Amino acid sequence: MPSIDLNADLGESATAADAAADHAMLALVSSANIACGFHAGGPYTIATAVERCVALNVAIGAHPSYPDRSGFGRRFLDATPDEIYYDVLYQIGALDAFCRVVAARLRHVKPHGALYNHAAVNTDAADAIARAVHDYNPDLALFAPPGSRLLAAADRIGIFTVPEVFADRAVNADGTLVSRRLAGAVLHDPAIVAERAVRMVLQQTVTSMDGVEVALAGKTLCLHGDAPGAVTRAATLRQALEAAGITVAPPSRDHDDGN
Amino acid sequence: MPSIDLNADLGESATAADAAADHAMLALVSSANIACGFHAGGPYTIATAVERCVALNVAIGAHPSYPDRSGFGRRFLDATPDEIYYDVLYQIGALDAFCRVVAARLRHVKPHGALYNHAAVNTDAADAIARAVHDYNPDLALFAPPGSRLLAAADRIGIFTVPEVFADRAVNADGTLVSRRLAGAVLHDPAIVAERAVRMVLQQTVTSMDGVEVALAGKTLCLHGDAPGAVTRAATLRQALEAAGITVAPPSRDHDDGN
Amino acid sequence: MPSIDLNADLGESATAADAAADHAMLALVSSANIACGFHAGGPYTIATAVERCVALNVAIGAHPSYPDRSGFGRRFLDATPDEIYYDVLYQIGALDAFCRVVAARLRHVKPHGALYNHAAVNTDAADAIARAVHDYNPDLALFAPPGSRLLAAADRIGIFTVPEVFADRAVNADGTLVSRRLAGAVLHDPAIVAERAVRMVLQQTVTSMDGVEVALAGKTLCLHGDAPGAVTRAATLRQALEAAGITVAPPSRDHDDGN
Amino acid sequence: MPSIDLNADLGESATAADAAADHAMLALVSSANIACGFHAGGPYTIATAVERCVALNVAIGAHPSYPDRSGFGRRFLDATPDEIYYDVLYQIGALDAFCRVVAARLRHVKPHGALYNHAAVNTDAADAIARAVHDYNPDLALFAPPGSRLLAAADRIGIFTVPEVFADRAVNADGTLVSRRLAGAVLHDPAIVAERAVRMVLQQTVTSMDGVEVALAGKTLCLHGDAPGAVTRAATLRQALEAAGITVAPPSRDHDDGN
Repeated sequence: MPSIDLNADLGESATAADAAADHAMLALVSSANIACGFHAGGPYTIATAVERCVALNVAIGAHPSYPDRSGFGRRFLDATPDEIYYDVLYQIGALDAFCRVVAARLRHVKPHGALYNHAAVNTDAADAIARAVHDYNPDLALFAPPGSRLLAAADRIGIFTVPEVFADRAVNADGTLVSRRLAGAVLHDPAIVAERAVRMVLQQTVTSMDGVEVALAGKTLCLHGDAPGAVTRAATLRQALEAAGITVAPPSRDHDDGN
Repeated sequence: MPSIDLNADLGESATAADAAADHAMLALVSSANIACGFHAGGPYTIATAVERCVALNVAIGAHPSYPDRSGFGRRFLDATPDEIYYDVLYQIGALDAFCRVVAARLRHVKPHGALYNHAAVNTDAADAIARAVHDYNPDLALFAPPGSRLLAAADRIGIFTVPEVFADRAVNADGTLVSRRLAGAVLHDPAIVAERAVRMVLQQTVTSMDGVEVALAGKTLCLHGDAPGAVTRAATLRQALEAAGITVAPPSRDHDDGN
Repeated sequence: MPSIDLNADLGESATAADAAADHAMLALVSSANIACGFHAGGPYTIATAVERCVALNVAIGAHPSYPDRSGFGRRFLDATPDEIYYDVLYQIGALDAFCRVVAARLRHVKPHGALYNHAAVNTDAADAIARAVHDYNPDLALFAPPGSRLLAAADRIGIFTVPEVFADRAVNADGTLVSRRLAGAVLHDPAIVAERAVRMVLQQTVTSMDGVEVALAGKTLCLHGDAPGAVTRAATLRQALEAAGITVAPPSRDHDDGN
Repeated sequence: MPSIDLNADLGESATAADAAADHAMLALVSSANIACGFHAGGPYTIATAVERCVALNVAIGAHPSYPDRSGFGRRFLDATPDEIYYDVLYQIGALDAFCRVVAARLRHVKPHGALYNHAAVNTDAADAIARAVHDYNPDLALFAPPGSRLLAAADRIGIFTVPEVFADRAVNADGTLVSRRLAGAVLHDPAIVAERAVRMVLQQTVTSMDGVEVALAGKTLCLHGDAPGAVTRAATLRQALEAAGITVAPPSRDHDDGN
């Protein structure tokens, strides 16, 4: 029976409106990436986020970032591999403390924003992140783009990898995402996005911007929760997946997963 | 054979001069309290501090603070017990991550500055800290003033307590410290300070500002490393302790300790 | 012809939803208090906020806070008067730079959250704030509660004072606000709030929680923009003021104001 | 009569040892670059630094940085030109407030660390900084490397430029600094450094690493204060300048300066 993990970012704002959106997204996903205080969030938002994940049985992940609150972690910072290792380690440990005290389990790590994008193409940064995750707890999973340096680094060091795909982003013929600076990079039609999601799971393919059929094997699908209408789109996507007989569940580590 | 723990704060600055002073102090103490990023320090200073403690076989402790970098954690902040609990938990977890990856053990927690002072006299704050320490890891020790609310809270929840005393501070007739705002609150003469330290350990007494003999049972003695001449004074004190046949070692949990 | 200033806080979040709410509130008020980076906001939110105020002809004010991002400036911090003076000065200067480069004028200062509340009752804090405002620019106005220490300090040093009142808060018989910890402290019915606002302006009185008629002379009325339904309530209030023949405009410094 | 400005960074640490070093350097320089809170410092260190500059008659400058406290502003951050403009503007305004309240004059701006290095070679960043300085106050001077994009941007927008040179750094044949990653990039011999400084001022030349005579016209010479022995080396350099008949004074804007 086909299955996919749905993930969303959590705990990135302390305002009432954002907390409500967080709550709505949590009802739709199977994994959450919780902001650890470097691009957003802090002890109080973490505590709330962990508590909600436990209540809704959502798998808890760390969402570490470059230390860049004013830029929301979206800007490349020329940190050394050691600095990246220590920054990621600090954030994982801080978040895990909140899991421990409620007897929850930290399940995965998904780097945020510019750190995620940089580690996708830079081996030194990728190795630093993979080492931090592995050294902290070799049972943690790492979310990373299919075919990326980050995924390769995680494979090398021997931690569980979860390739992440996006149903609402146009892709190039090599499977990489089309830059947001180009027109058409982001897909807005809920029906088209849902259809792509279903095909990604059932056939592990996607149609590129140029009309080419591209193989793309994802185990988790990212839902964006911070744009107007995001919750509604996410709900449409989940309904389409379920209508197609797809189970939504955290990434499985079973042997027949091929990992 | 009499023994005492000597502790000092660590990792509170990234400058070369301060790092050198840190290093010198580490050679003299048996326990170190490492800044966790809320009043000072951060991932890189933590990594260095943990590495040095391991190299010099110094027991590692967390030194959590109110979130107040601009005031170095020295100012009371009217945080709720929940906020204190989450702030302390976050800092312990972040620091512990650095211990885990080098297979070192986090041994104790000593709150910093205004948080330490407030928890000494406020039961709600004391309980919040003791709970955070206990919930994270019930084997951690908590450093706190003798007779304080913080010590009582730790006793109640059942974690190991380490009463902390100061050889370079004048005390009142009830054993509490004389306020720094009063003349004579801080003792500067290395010989007098060393003599008080020896007597604190061997006789568990100290002479108050008014000349009264006060019972004061400490298991750890705080050495200040951040003032001019501090390292020299600390060395004098340690030599006096050893000359008096006192062993310097981390707090023991043996049953005959009376705990 | 009766008139009142309406003020709201601005630039306290970088999320799209909050920016939209900010924009809607700006169309309703005559003065805005812009977060300066210590409890919320930063260079980019300030730039946007100043630009919008200019476009909508809203008077620009600084909204300085204790340095407490994780607590949103809502927690008392035991800062010295010197620290308060420097913190406020820094924030006013930073914000004013954004006014200068677009040839706009900084008009007023309204302390935020716990700093506002503390200065209302503490003369040392009040004097520190009034001095910072005065020393930076003696033409700036200071928003403060009627009868407060802060208002008195501003009067003493000779800057223009603007007493601030709240139509959606219950008041005690002495005109002070009922603590939010008590039931009934916040009024939610838009019609009642609007009616109180009109009476505050036309008759300079308000009915206390105990039914006593209280004299309360305000020159600015604070509108809260951050709760669900806030914009709608604010629009209702403004319509009621205008229907009663009241002009909404920044605080006037005319002599017949009695200042 | 030949003259040169000597500049040093100020207010980058709150520790007692660093404050003492700051104080010693201030007695040797004619211009100081004060940290504005983004890589180091804050309201309290700024207040102290401005006060000391006034007492010692040292020209006051702003030392704005990327927002990167954990990396001390030494790491490139991929900020947009608008973000750079706003960050620099915020920091200049904050610092200037402290000048205004003591009736001192802010004289110059020297970008810090990675921001300085990036703007030296990137026109967009250079323009953003030059615009921020100009828009805030067109009378401010901008310190920048000779031949840099930053200097060119300042020239274009019409603000006073002060080319900055380093006597303790090896230079390439084109006058640029030898990368610190190469051996020999930093010169440590006080006599050699002093001799280079004198020749830079009197002959406006320097010998490159390869032995080539390079023309290098500086109007300010940077003294590093944060390394062991720095104050002694700076004193040696200043004595050598004075022995050679060179006046140490802030950059002159006289017409015969050629600007």
